[in-house]
Amino acid sequence: MKQSISVLKDITEANSLLADNLRAGFSQRNLLVLNIIASPGAGKTSLLERTIEMLDGELRFSIIEGDPATSIDAERIAAIGVPVPVVQINTQGGCHLEARMIQKAVEQLEMADADVVVIENVGNLICPTGWDLGEDIKVVVASLPEGDDKPLKYPMAFVTAQAAVINKIDLEPYIRAKTTVMRENALTINPDLAVFEVSCITGQGIDEWLDWIREQLAKKRTTSK
Amino acid sequence: MKQSISVLKDITEANSLLADNLRAGFSQRNLLVLNIIASPGAGKTSLLERTIEMLDGELRFSIIEGDPATSIDAERIAAIGVPVPVVQINTQGGCHLEARMIQKAVEQLEMADADVVVIENVGNLICPTGWDLGEDIKVVVASLPEGDDKPLKYPMAFVTAQAAVINKIDLEPYIRAKTTVMRENALTINPDLAVFEVSCITGQGIDEWLDWIREQLAKKRTTSK
Repeated sequence: MKQSISVLKDITEANSLLADNLRAGFSQRNLLVLNIIASPGAGKTSLLERTIEMLDGELRFSIIEGDPATSIDAERIAAIGVPVPVVQINTQGGCHLEARMIQKAVEQLEMADADVVVIENVGNLICPTGWDLGEDIKVVVASLPEGDDKPLKYPMAFVTAQAAVINKIDLEPYIRAKTTVMRENALTINPDLAVFEVSCITGQGIDEWLDWIREQLAKKRTTSK
Repeated sequence: MKQSISVLKDITEANSLLADNLRAGFSQRNLLVLNIIASPGAGKTSLLERTIEMLDGELRFSIIEGDPATSIDAERIAAIGVPVPVVQINTQGGCHLEARMIQKAVEQLEMADADVVVIENVGNLICPTGWDLGEDIKVVVASLPEGDDKPLKYPMAFVTAQAAVINKIDLEPYIRAKTTVMRENALTINPDLAVFEVSCITGQGIDEWLDWIREQLAKKRTTSK
């Protein structure tokens, strides 16, 4: 097993070097880059759709979609009213995105007019947390129907993120999970998290999330100067 | 990368050998063994609670719980009215269970009176599909709020399973996903799947699932003879 561990270390170190290069390139272009991590079906794409639509005319997005098998998410992004450059990465069953995949995607992605690049990772609350993609910020999305104990059970996603979006809060009346408990559990794991409670269906809570994106972009542009 | 791929092959081959040994041991004891795979929060533990309670007095279960960080699930199983032997495997962040973990768990697990051993895998719809744990049957659980496109997006879980449980169908009136579409998508990926539509909260559809377990156990005992 020793051999496999050292090989894995080599791979993740090579990944980190490449990610640092990507980050430098993104910063030169004045881009804010988010890496969104979540379970399958937590609502990453729905959050992205809402965000792009509501910031239309104010901020411009370029999107990288990661998926094990299909291009469903990229097609959803392409189908919203706002034209947004999007590249789909198909991992062919792979459980996470890696920096080398982002490098390839970036070669194809139109970013000349973008303010924010969002990378939607493969639906997986565990493996993506260990792979730096050159992002500025990791965002974890967790939906309330998954259960309010998820931050305790999958802590690394919440430890490595700067923001947590609790999605599908409109379903709270019909389920046992509580938004307040999920928030508390997220902050127990990482007290520095910015936590947002949203419903991508009703739009509740989305404004605070959009304000946070504006703030992060302003911060990035101040420190880049 | 070549080196890492050959190392991984060695590890999975060693895993398969060990899994075959485990399977032989389970069969000698006349046990049916299920490996349950699902996203975080799909309702694996809730399904298990319902199943154990409703088959109380008829079938006896022994449970192996896999989790990246906590023993919440094992505590839930220990807290139901029916006393059930349960061993918790904490993967310390790891994204799937492996046969060597099951071997250790089995050394501690009380199975003398059991009819069925259920292994609840780590919440992850991708990585666990590649690791044989010595089970007879893989079961995939997918909850309706995750979206009815999940079988298409995470096909390997549905390809390798013999049964798919669509959970949380009581939420259908409040969401956009449709049970019939999720069923169709599951059967598109794997036409041989036994598909169950259930709510662990209302109990709807659980009877068909229990009948299926009875059938699998009868089949196993016939072929073991």
